[in-house]
Amino acid sequence: MEHPKREMLKMAAKLFEEKGYHKCSLQDIVQPLGLTKGSFYYYFSSKEELLYNIHDEMVAFSLEKLEELSAQSGLRAEDKLYIIVKCMLLTIHHYRSHVAVFFQEKKYLNPDDLEKIRAKRKRFADMVYHLLAEDYEKGRFKSDLDLKVVILGIFGMCNWAYQWYEYEGRLDIEAIIDTFYAVLKDGFLAK
Amino acid sequence: MEHPKREMLKMAAKLFEEKGYHKCSLQDIVQPLGLTKGSFYYYFSSKEELLYNIHDEMVAFSLEKLEELSAQSGLRAEDKLYIIVKCMLLTIHHYRSHVAVFFQEKKYLNPDDLEKIRAKRKRFADMVYHLLAEDYEKGRFKSDLDLKVVILGIFGMCNWAYQWYEYEGRLDIEAIIDTFYAVLKDGFLAK
Repeated sequence: MEHPKREMLKMAAKLFEEKGYHKCSLQDIVQPLGLTKGSFYYYFSSKEELLYNIHDEMVAFSLEKLEELSAQSGLRAEDKLYIIVKCMLLTIHHYRSHVAVFFQEKKYLNPDDLEKIRAKRKRFADMVYHLLAEDYEKGRFKSDLDLKVVILGIFGMCNWAYQWYEYEGRLDIEAIIDTFYAVLKDGFLAK
Repeated sequence: MEHPKREMLKMAAKLFEEKGYHKCSLQDIVQPLGLTKGSFYYYFSSKEELLYNIHDEMVAFSLEKLEELSAQSGLRAEDKLYIIVKCMLLTIHHYRSHVAVFFQEKKYLNPDDLEKIRAKRKRFADMVYHLLAEDYEKGRFKSDLDLKVVILGIFGMCNWAYQWYEYEGRLDIEAIIDTFYAVLKDGFLAK
C-alpha cells in the first residue's frame, strides 16, 4: 500500500467523481482502504480540506512537470507545443479523477481554497502563454491565428481527456500525446 | 419575455451552474422571472424533470444543427470538419450554461433520463464519426492518425469552450470557429 494520505486522496477523488462530494461520507472513503476515521483526521482536518488537497495535488503535479520539461535549453517552437500537450495529458494519465472532481465539485471548495487553486491554475496558463508567445512574435506560429484562442483550444483538447481517457485503454498515453501533437504542430506552426 | 418554459430553463441552467443543482430551490428559479411555483408546475412535474429538459434542449439543438448542415450535397472533407466545429461551438454560443450543467450535474439525473441523454449524445458522436470516416478511408485525412482520437480532440477543443466562452466577449463566435477550423484543417487534412 502507498502512503495512507495518498491512498485516501485517490479513493476520495474516485468516489467524489462517481457519487458527488456531498453524497460521499468519510466512512465511504476510509472503509475500502481498511482505514479508520481516526487515520483520516490524522492527515486532514475536514472533508473540505481533503477536497482542497485533491485539487492541489493535481495542479502541483502539472506545474512541476511543466517547469521541469520547459527548463531545457534550445527548445524549438514545436518542442514547446509537444511539452505542453505532454504535460497536460500526463496530468490526466496520473490524476484523471482528480481533474474530473475539480471541474464537477470545485464550487464546494471554500472561497479561500478556491482562490489558491485558481492562482496556481493561472500560473500554469501564464507559463504556457509565455512559453509560446516568444515564438509567436517571431512568426514561428501562424500569425493570423489568435494565440490565446489557440491555447484555449489546446487546453480543451487535452483537459477534455478526463471525460474519456482510460488508464489501460486501447491506446496508451504516449500515442494520444503524439496524435494531438501531430494535429497541433501542422495546424499551428507557420509554414 | 420569451416563452415562460424557455425562460425557466435558461434561469435554471444559470443557477444550477453557479450554485449546484442541490443548493438551488424552485423559488430561486421562478422569483427573478416574476413567476410562481404554480407556473413552474404547469410546465414541469419536478426539479428533476427540469434538469432533464435542460440537457435535452441542448442535445436536441446540436443534433438538429448537425443534421441540417450535413444534409448539403457535395461536401468536401474540410467542409465536414468546418460543419462539426461550427455545430459544436454554436451549441456553446446558445447553451453555454446548459452544457456546463450537463458536465457538472448529470449525476443527479435519474438513471432513465441519463440513459436517454446519453443515447442522443451517442447519436451525435456517431454522426460525426460517419461524416468523417468515408473521407478518412479514402485518404483525405492523415491516415497515420487515429480517427477516433482526433475526434475526441475536436470534441475537447470545442466543448471546453463552455469553461471560458463569453457571449459578448473579445472575440465573436465566428472568429473562434474559424480559428479552431484553421488548426484542424491543416492539422488533420492529408497533405
